[in-house]
Amino acid sequence: MYDIVRDYYLERGFGGRVGFGRTPALVVIDMAKAWIDPDAPIGSDNVEKIVDPILRVLRGAREAEIPIFFTTMAFDAGGSESAGPIGRKLLHMSERGSMVRGEASVELDPRLRRRESEVLIEKQRASAFWGTTFGAHLVRNRVDTLIITGCSTSGCVRATAESAHNENYHTIVVGDAVGDRHLLAHECNLIDIDLRYGDVATSDEVARYLKGRNAPKTPAEGGKHDHFA
Amino acid sequence: MYDIVRDYYLERGFGGRVGFGRTPALVVIDMAKAWIDPDAPIGSDNVEKIVDPILRVLRGAREAEIPIFFTTMAFDAGGSESAGPIGRKLLHMSERGSMVRGEASVELDPRLRRRESEVLIEKQRASAFWGTTFGAHLVRNRVDTLIITGCSTSGCVRATAESAHNENYHTIVVGDAVGDRHLLAHECNLIDIDLRYGDVATSDEVARYLKGRNAPKTPAEGGKHDHFA
Amino acid sequence: MYDIVRDYYLERGFGGRVGFGRTPALVVIDMAKAWIDPDAPIGSDNVEKIVDPILRVLRGAREAEIPIFFTTMAFDAGGSESAGPIGRKLLHMSERGSMVRGEASVELDPRLRRRESEVLIEKQRASAFWGTTFGAHLVRNRVDTLIITGCSTSGCVRATAESAHNENYHTIVVGDAVGDRHLLAHECNLIDIDLRYGDVATSDEVARYLKGRNAPKTPAEGGKHDHFA
Amino acid sequence: MYDIVRDYYLERGFGGRVGFGRTPALVVIDMAKAWIDPDAPIGSDNVEKIVDPILRVLRGAREAEIPIFFTTMAFDAGGSESAGPIGRKLLHMSERGSMVRGEASVELDPRLRRRESEVLIEKQRASAFWGTTFGAHLVRNRVDTLIITGCSTSGCVRATAESAHNENYHTIVVGDAVGDRHLLAHECNLIDIDLRYGDVATSDEVARYLKGRNAPKTPAEGGKHDHFA
Repeated sequence: MYDIVRDYYLERGFGGRVGFGRTPALVVIDMAKAWIDPDAPIGSDNVEKIVDPILRVLRGAREAEIPIFFTTMAFDAGGSESAGPIGRKLLHMSERGSMVRGEASVELDPRLRRRESEVLIEKQRASAFWGTTFGAHLVRNRVDTLIITGCSTSGCVRATAESAHNENYHTIVVGDAVGDRHLLAHECNLIDIDLRYGDVATSDEVARYLKGRNAPKTPAEGGKHDHFA
Repeated sequence: MYDIVRDYYLERGFGGRVGFGRTPALVVIDMAKAWIDPDAPIGSDNVEKIVDPILRVLRGAREAEIPIFFTTMAFDAGGSESAGPIGRKLLHMSERGSMVRGEASVELDPRLRRRESEVLIEKQRASAFWGTTFGAHLVRNRVDTLIITGCSTSGCVRATAESAHNENYHTIVVGDAVGDRHLLAHECNLIDIDLRYGDVATSDEVARYLKGRNAPKTPAEGGKHDHFA
Repeated sequence: MYDIVRDYYLERGFGGRVGFGRTPALVVIDMAKAWIDPDAPIGSDNVEKIVDPILRVLRGAREAEIPIFFTTMAFDAGGSESAGPIGRKLLHMSERGSMVRGEASVELDPRLRRRESEVLIEKQRASAFWGTTFGAHLVRNRVDTLIITGCSTSGCVRATAESAHNENYHTIVVGDAVGDRHLLAHECNLIDIDLRYGDVATSDEVARYLKGRNAPKTPAEGGKHDHFA
Repeated sequence: MYDIVRDYYLERGFGGRVGFGRTPALVVIDMAKAWIDPDAPIGSDNVEKIVDPILRVLRGAREAEIPIFFTTMAFDAGGSESAGPIGRKLLHMSERGSMVRGEASVELDPRLRRRESEVLIEKQRASAFWGTTFGAHLVRNRVDTLIITGCSTSGCVRATAESAHNENYHTIVVGDAVGDRHLLAHECNLIDIDLRYGDVATSDEVARYLKGRNAPKTPAEGGKHDHFA
């Protein structure tokens, strides 16, 4: 029913198509037990279903040899890092220890099989850009397009999409590869994202786009000889 | 009906009460014709009604002598500043000239009667913090609480609340003094804000809080003599 | 005599060559009367001499059709924007009105002949990145190399070079096209920059690099059709 | 001999006194073996001497119960985090493994006796603010004054002082409690800092200031009951 918001906004010039650019990167947001496991404090049974689409996108990204990033969240056990308004608002963090550094709950799902060259960003806020070096990694790779997967749609996914839009990246959120603990929050926020920050695409569209790219033509910036001599 | 999201999230430890801190500031987001006027490209008839509650909060803030800020948005007429993905997504900006610097449409509503000491932040993204000096103004005044009013709830208000939460401010969004061109977007986003980023309070609660403060006790940092000699 | 610092640092693994990347942009920092005019509060007779080298680099950049940016500084006449520690430290700003918005002193030197498509960044701190949208303009153009000219070497140039390094750009400071009101500050800071943040190159080296690039091969991202259909 | 720069700049309205504010925090920058140990790749025998002054300031800060922060630097052993221009410029990092996460070389000097409540900021750039949550910790504690100690004066100390100035903090650099591997780099940069970003004070002045404050009057923001009910 949030479609009436979409229609109203589309008429007023929101929701244009950003489209894919030429040098994409993929980010997989917060795919760890803390969010996937239905028994974890902030887990649910609504996120497991996005694992397969994420793996499909991940496979395409590795074949296309584009930069790949993962995020997780982590705070100190003592509570100094989660003190203040952030902890008062997110009681699961300050009182239920939902995201403590070093615990298994914040380790990436092993099915993702992160490689050493794929940077893991440890973040403490919703956006992958906030208080991290993530943006500089994108710059180094001359990325112009950020493909976003993971969870949660109404939290870290939307915040990361907003940041990517702010930085003027082609922002692509993979609709079937992002999830939220509540389906309605997922749907409404996906529409807001599509209207304001990034295009919502399917994992099929993203797979086709990644296949169509000729990896060797636009290699990630790399070796020491790759400069003016 | 977004209440089912609220209940689900509250059970999982979201939506704690941040509460008011001791040194508040007020920000009034984007109250210019471009957003208020129903005939403007992105205007609507849903925002005019928040003018009175904003004026009430503004009066209380001036009496309490707390720092007050206003924002507006502005891009160059030539289009260089709105080029790229941001302009492709927000066609009202790139194609309909919804927010051009120097035009009357982006000037603050005269009813706000901005004073020279009340800083106007010209921004180019949703959040008042992004690409601006806003955060430094809060630091200078040792602000710990940001009271947010204006529009739009699903865009600039939510983004500013998220940023304020990120920076660990007590984030207070005045529910009846923020608005959105579509009521449903307003309602759903207000709940998301309350669950994740800041407390949604009424203008009455904020007025009482501002009255209860003893302004002279916590003056904004100021004169040249206010330092170690 | 700061050469002894250079040698000591070079032995310890600082001062490697970053080299030029593939997609450069040029920024011209603060070339306005406030800095060039010897009679202005913070002006000197040491900056005029970099105008010619800047014009040469600018010509090469326009021929190579790379993105070009200019910066200036500007604060409100009333003093709200320069209040606090920043104004206490920089008395020329808070007490001598060295950089007031709208005054001729902060307008770009007309010899630069800025074109409408060349974005002017109005900043309030030393770095062109701080509190501005500059970084997003670089992202939009998939820039990987920032060529820095202008003044002052020990202030805005060094700060911008540090920021560009932080963001992981190939940072190139054009030694004969940057200047400082005091020659010794220029020399020492140029060495620090070369050791820590970016390569110091000559305007000749930069001109050759820009000539060697084939502009049409790496156009700035642009038209509406430049995306996945 | 850099005094001639100081005099020239002072006449032109740089180098005003910021002074101490009311709610200070202390940061100790990069006091680990990597920088203190003369045998480490980027170590020297010029930093050990600042340990005692730092310990004195630290003692005063703990007695005054102000917020205390430490920083260190750390990169992954695989090299993904130090790839690109940053690693090309800082060869000690990319080629000599000067700062690898988990190694003893980047652990804080045990003489500092960091307490659990004193937040450790792991950073990857010169400034303690860049790519970290440091700024939000200062906001949470309503800090208005940042007292900076540690190393190196020409790198992380200057960069952190510049950032603190940017955010409009009263920036105080403790002259005898900051050091650099080369004495000349220390002296010149200390003068630049004093002219542009923060006051250079002695550890004695800072000790007196900290003693003069009445700790209980301005406690760090804390308990759950510390808000509007």
